[in-house]
Amino acid sequence: MENFRFQCATKIIFGKGTESFVGKEVGKLTNKILLHYGGGSIKKYGLYDKIIKLLKEESIEIVELAGVKPNPRLSMVGKGIELCRKNKVELILAVGGGSVIDSAKAISIGVNYNGNVWDFYTGKERAKKALPVGVVLTIPAAGSESSPGSVITKEEGSYKRPYVDNIIRPRFAILNPEISYTLPPYQTACGVVDIMAHIMERYFTTVSNVDLTDRLCEAALKTMIKNAPVVLKKKDDYNARAEIMWTGTVAHTDLLETGRIGDWGSHDIEHELSGIYDIAHGAGLAVIFPAWMKYVYKKDIQKFVQFAVRVWNIEYDFDNKGKMVFEGIKRLKEFFKQIGMPVSLKELNINSDRFDEMSRKATENGPLGNFMKLSKEDVFNIYKLSQ
Amino acid sequence: MENFRFQCATKIIFGKGTESFVGKEVGKLTNKILLHYGGGSIKKYGLYDKIIKLLKEESIEIVELAGVKPNPRLSMVGKGIELCRKNKVELILAVGGGSVIDSAKAISIGVNYNGNVWDFYTGKERAKKALPVGVVLTIPAAGSESSPGSVITKEEGSYKRPYVDNIIRPRFAILNPEISYTLPPYQTACGVVDIMAHIMERYFTTVSNVDLTDRLCEAALKTMIKNAPVVLKKKDDYNARAEIMWTGTVAHTDLLETGRIGDWGSHDIEHELSGIYDIAHGAGLAVIFPAWMKYVYKKDIQKFVQFAVRVWNIEYDFDNKGKMVFEGIKRLKEFFKQIGMPVSLKELNINSDRFDEMSRKATENGPLGNFMKLSKEDVFNIYKLSQ
Repeated sequence: MENFRFQCATKIIFGKGTESFVGKEVGKLTNKILLHYGGGSIKKYGLYDKIIKLLKEESIEIVELAGVKPNPRLSMVGKGIELCRKNKVELILAVGGGSVIDSAKAISIGVNYNGNVWDFYTGKERAKKALPVGVVLTIPAAGSESSPGSVITKEEGSYKRPYVDNIIRPRFAILNPEISYTLPPYQTACGVVDIMAHIMERYFTTVSNVDLTDRLCEAALKTMIKNAPVVLKKKDDYNARAEIMWTGTVAHTDLLETGRIGDWGSHDIEHELSGIYDIAHGAGLAVIFPAWMKYVYKKDIQKFVQFAVRVWNIEYDFDNKGKMVFEGIKRLKEFFKQIGMPVSLKELNINSDRFDEMSRKATENGPLGNFMKLSKEDVFNIYKLSQ
Repeated sequence: MENFRFQCATKIIFGKGTESFVGKEVGKLTNKILLHYGGGSIKKYGLYDKIIKLLKEESIEIVELAGVKPNPRLSMVGKGIELCRKNKVELILAVGGGSVIDSAKAISIGVNYNGNVWDFYTGKERAKKALPVGVVLTIPAAGSESSPGSVITKEEGSYKRPYVDNIIRPRFAILNPEISYTLPPYQTACGVVDIMAHIMERYFTTVSNVDLTDRLCEAALKTMIKNAPVVLKKKDDYNARAEIMWTGTVAHTDLLETGRIGDWGSHDIEHELSGIYDIAHGAGLAVIFPAWMKYVYKKDIQKFVQFAVRVWNIEYDFDNKGKMVFEGIKRLKEFFKQIGMPVSLKELNINSDRFDEMSRKATENGPLGNFMKLSKEDVFNIYKLSQ
């Protein structure tokens, strides 16, 4: 086990009807906010009206910025920074999924920074100040509601880059699983894959003697495998929606990574895809992750055997470990298919034309991943395996 | 799953040599502290000298209060409060295990309270202010290093009572597994039982649809079952010590209780024992918990079957669930014996003389537990089953 520091101070308010606490929670911190959200879905289902009413009851002044898109854009972040400065906003309330929250986090560190906020995403600068961010979660997926990460896409050059810093962990996150009832099946499934990927990125580590976190990861994966098919059959199954939503948050607080070194290669490889083709991050991960597994498993076959046995209940085969590994990967792919996800680039209408460009861009700051360090060639091969 | 709120803001600094950060961490918060600890063990192994040196390097003024005993006493808390007031102390640094930390927490809420600090423990008052508490952990057991709880014993009448409040969660906790190398086997085992009991108190709930937290609890229990025997054979096995220490903390942050209602009956029943007989809390729990299980399992046999199958790998017996339940309890008792713990009151030289008195005192504020509500008679019967 590696030495580590861990602190996740986000206040979680979880359960039925909990959005009703939003006015009080914001009111404890400020009376002037930026209300940040995506498209019209929060208006369609009445969430917007409810939140506005609750904020007004606490006499909170609201500046609005709508229109955040999946794979949130740097240009939108710029608009948000400007609005916050002009209106002396003191808190950003993100109502949405990972894209909205990531955009809010980027705005929060840009407001009091004199340079270009993209500097944080290229690694040029670390944030010294951040406005507090509050969250009302609508999509369980990215885990951004209590994570220290934000991923932003710069349109010019199609760069998608992460910034990770405790300073941007939200102050509070309101999680009502009922709000996720209206998510279409495809988006629900993309969220499921994203959550599972967050767990698996941490699971596949070369750090040994990590019993507790291995088992916590397996616990989280098994919970997803059980509950995802349930909500795809019955969209308003509260308990299954609740399991998915809470697992999605727990999966990304870093607790599952304590004492370990996560991989994160598959995420970086996928970021190139969704950065260029604007596909859903979860769908991209469903394609990339199994291919990555096939490519790297020999680095530590025992970990993949453990994955097969403990997560997929595959009987230990004393004669053929490789067979177990492939059976584990096969089950994962079958699960992704079962929930309606693509498992090949072909299904996403992506051909090999830009494999070379993506491999180059993905590795321009050095090799990817930790479980196995991936060069440009490795990344290219993984794209090929994903076809 | 139940609605819940969860926030654990304690900063964890975990790993080899991490006590070297104590001066810097304290220095970020104040320059005047109460250094609170137990007997001579921290002096014997050089930890005391090291900490004093690090604090002095940061020009921190130190008031000392040593002598905290297991089952920490209200009289000691009173002394601490007086010292803090007199010296205008701004932070309490607890160097020790659960007793020292619990004592520090009690002092922290007593300093700015005009009444008797015992009021918090009888439920008469809630704390409005608390001095910050920092921790250097020496004994993995109580989980107090990041928990919202404190248990204090009032000598007069031998009352042992808990106070639970987010306000007393420590600000930071330094966890170096190497420091636990010097713990004698008996104390190590008591800590193991305490940690497992914290998990099991949460595991046995009547709340249904709690997949994630069920599995997180099982993950934590399996980690303990694997690693405890290792450190009892080889006291300086870093990895096994690390697993135990980190599991002990995670077990008591309340994450494992999110969306559930824990039981806590066994803890209350045990508190009467250690309050009167001054036995180690863990040893008392090793005796009480299996007896409690035998007494209550019929309330929800399926949960105990799951415990047998998932935690103890007992094969599912389609014909005889009761047999599986008893096999699970038997394995737990065998495990406790294997690590040198008592599994009967006789082994602790406790006879039935005070069963009646303890049952009465334990239930004087109402029935105990949640999995099954326990009356005075029930508690009496559980003491009898523990003989």
